[in-house]
Amino acid sequence: MTATPVSGPDKILLSHGEGGKRSHDLIGRVIARHFANPVLSNFFDSGLLGRIDGEIAFTTDGHVVTPAFFPGGDIGRLAVCGAVNDLAVCGAKGLAISCGLVLEEGFPIETLERVLMSMRDAAAEAGVFVACGDTKVVEKGKGDGIFINTAAIGVMAPGWRPSYEAVRPGDRILLSGTMGDHYIAVLVARQGLSVTAPVLSDMAPLGGLLLPAVERFGKGIRIMRDPTRGGVGVTLNEIATSAKARFVLDEERLPVRESVRGVCEILGFDPLYLANEGKALLIVDASAAEDVLVSLREHPLGREAAIVGEVAEGSPGVRMRTLAGGLRAVDYPVGDQLPRIC
Amino acid sequence: MTATPVSGPDKILLSHGEGGKRSHDLIGRVIARHFANPVLSNFFDSGLLGRIDGEIAFTTDGHVVTPAFFPGGDIGRLAVCGAVNDLAVCGAKGLAISCGLVLEEGFPIETLERVLMSMRDAAAEAGVFVACGDTKVVEKGKGDGIFINTAAIGVMAPGWRPSYEAVRPGDRILLSGTMGDHYIAVLVARQGLSVTAPVLSDMAPLGGLLLPAVERFGKGIRIMRDPTRGGVGVTLNEIATSAKARFVLDEERLPVRESVRGVCEILGFDPLYLANEGKALLIVDASAAEDVLVSLREHPLGREAAIVGEVAEGSPGVRMRTLAGGLRAVDYPVGDQLPRIC
Repeated sequence: MTATPVSGPDKILLSHGEGGKRSHDLIGRVIARHFANPVLSNFFDSGLLGRIDGEIAFTTDGHVVTPAFFPGGDIGRLAVCGAVNDLAVCGAKGLAISCGLVLEEGFPIETLERVLMSMRDAAAEAGVFVACGDTKVVEKGKGDGIFINTAAIGVMAPGWRPSYEAVRPGDRILLSGTMGDHYIAVLVARQGLSVTAPVLSDMAPLGGLLLPAVERFGKGIRIMRDPTRGGVGVTLNEIATSAKARFVLDEERLPVRESVRGVCEILGFDPLYLANEGKALLIVDASAAEDVLVSLREHPLGREAAIVGEVAEGSPGVRMRTLAGGLRAVDYPVGDQLPRIC
Repeated sequence: MTATPVSGPDKILLSHGEGGKRSHDLIGRVIARHFANPVLSNFFDSGLLGRIDGEIAFTTDGHVVTPAFFPGGDIGRLAVCGAVNDLAVCGAKGLAISCGLVLEEGFPIETLERVLMSMRDAAAEAGVFVACGDTKVVEKGKGDGIFINTAAIGVMAPGWRPSYEAVRPGDRILLSGTMGDHYIAVLVARQGLSVTAPVLSDMAPLGGLLLPAVERFGKGIRIMRDPTRGGVGVTLNEIATSAKARFVLDEERLPVRESVRGVCEILGFDPLYLANEGKALLIVDASAAEDVLVSLREHPLGREAAIVGEVAEGSPGVRMRTLAGGLRAVDYPVGDQLPRIC
């Protein structure tokens, strides 16, 4: 899968952002070529999507990850997964996405094409198409290669809505897979760490995993969130605050890949706070929890799903039953984490 | 209209982008506070918009203008106008927008608040609300203060669609007002030029101007575009290509503010290629053109609207009848223009 050669400069020039012939050529010959579809190829100022039957969800996600390529993917795939996963955890099937690029002068066009092809492939995997786009160029030193903003439109599963209010003591906390893979993959790539077992980013579009569960179990699933920046620890704190709920995790049940645990032990990271890009947290009615778990495990992206805790009586917050048998508070992380992980 | 003081750091820190407590506080206490509405305040991963009755239009627009503040507005107002105008020229009434921020470490939070308030006010003026957002932080020297991506969802005027195919010889070319105001306002601010007559950016949301005309004249209006980057000259070339049409402009009819003309004469700019952010080009059936013109002029944003040319027989392209009586080609601009004008 290689890019078709395109005549013209091989790097992004400031004039690619000025709106003249060069902008026109970049958009038409390089960018839109990869995303060709009947909506985009009209070249109207908006993508005309027609009538959409159902309730609409709308989200946006910016991506500034560095490096732009890392084990398991790149900023293009990340940009698609980030947006469609924000839909999926709200119970919405992705329909259309946007592609907003901020390119730094001097960025290689061949690299841009690799990122665009990666977006195209991820969009196909997620069942969405690129309906609109925008490209801006900034001077060398005023950006960092490539930033991508995606927005996405989806259609809600009929009859289901996320509900913080529905969370109640006894509910179970499910996690769809291992923690921290994305963070560690980016960290290893950025710092050129030498690791024995490679760690791949877990990024993946989650609609295929989550939407069948929502359709099958309905209100048995209270709420879903994807634990990206800040990881499971921060995301659960946010849910606890919104739901006014107390969550108790079981440390021994939290899935962590051995290779990730190894890097965490060397560098002193707690996997609980590390970003994922292909995982979901679900708060589920106790009576449905085992069935939801089985359903998640039937999907390739949910093989390592686990019930990792439950909702308890008490003041809002997050606690963890440790391997040592104690109960410790899981707060927002105190130490600085890596910037630009997504 | 001042920002309520917020405790905490007065500049953007890298930790504002890490997903922990500081990110949470920035989003909750600073950003979402300005955009408070029932959809956003749920803090779900997507904005849940409910059922939308009608055909949907979807667009995105990135904003990297420098400086971020200039006569007539700032990057916040620009980000809202840019997105909703892409909807308006497609005949769609804006409903919801997103707010995707890329902030550079060290960016003053007080300045961020000014930009957000400006977005909020422009959104109210345009009749849209902020349904979702995302905020990323990059290291000092890897961005340039603030970049804003907006995406927008709108509902099409029933029964109308832009149509390049409908353009035919005899159609009139209408321009809703003067050319180049936005470009010159940003240029003057960036270069600290001393000008006798101040030039204000023309940026404004165009739905209120254009949608009543679409509803009233229907298919009499063939297509509309907003001449932003590259100005009227580039936008007409793009329409000419898509419509396979030949456009002939009358130089004497092209509206240019005296103050803009003055700066152009000194610096050697052709106003035909200068960006606008509150103007529209309309290709209109000859029999409706005068009525559309009257309708545009009734609106405050269309007071200086004019019929500036017509569609002629012949090969696709743009020509201009000059003041001197000749006919010259209007191609894509050759010289480099200013980057980062929007």
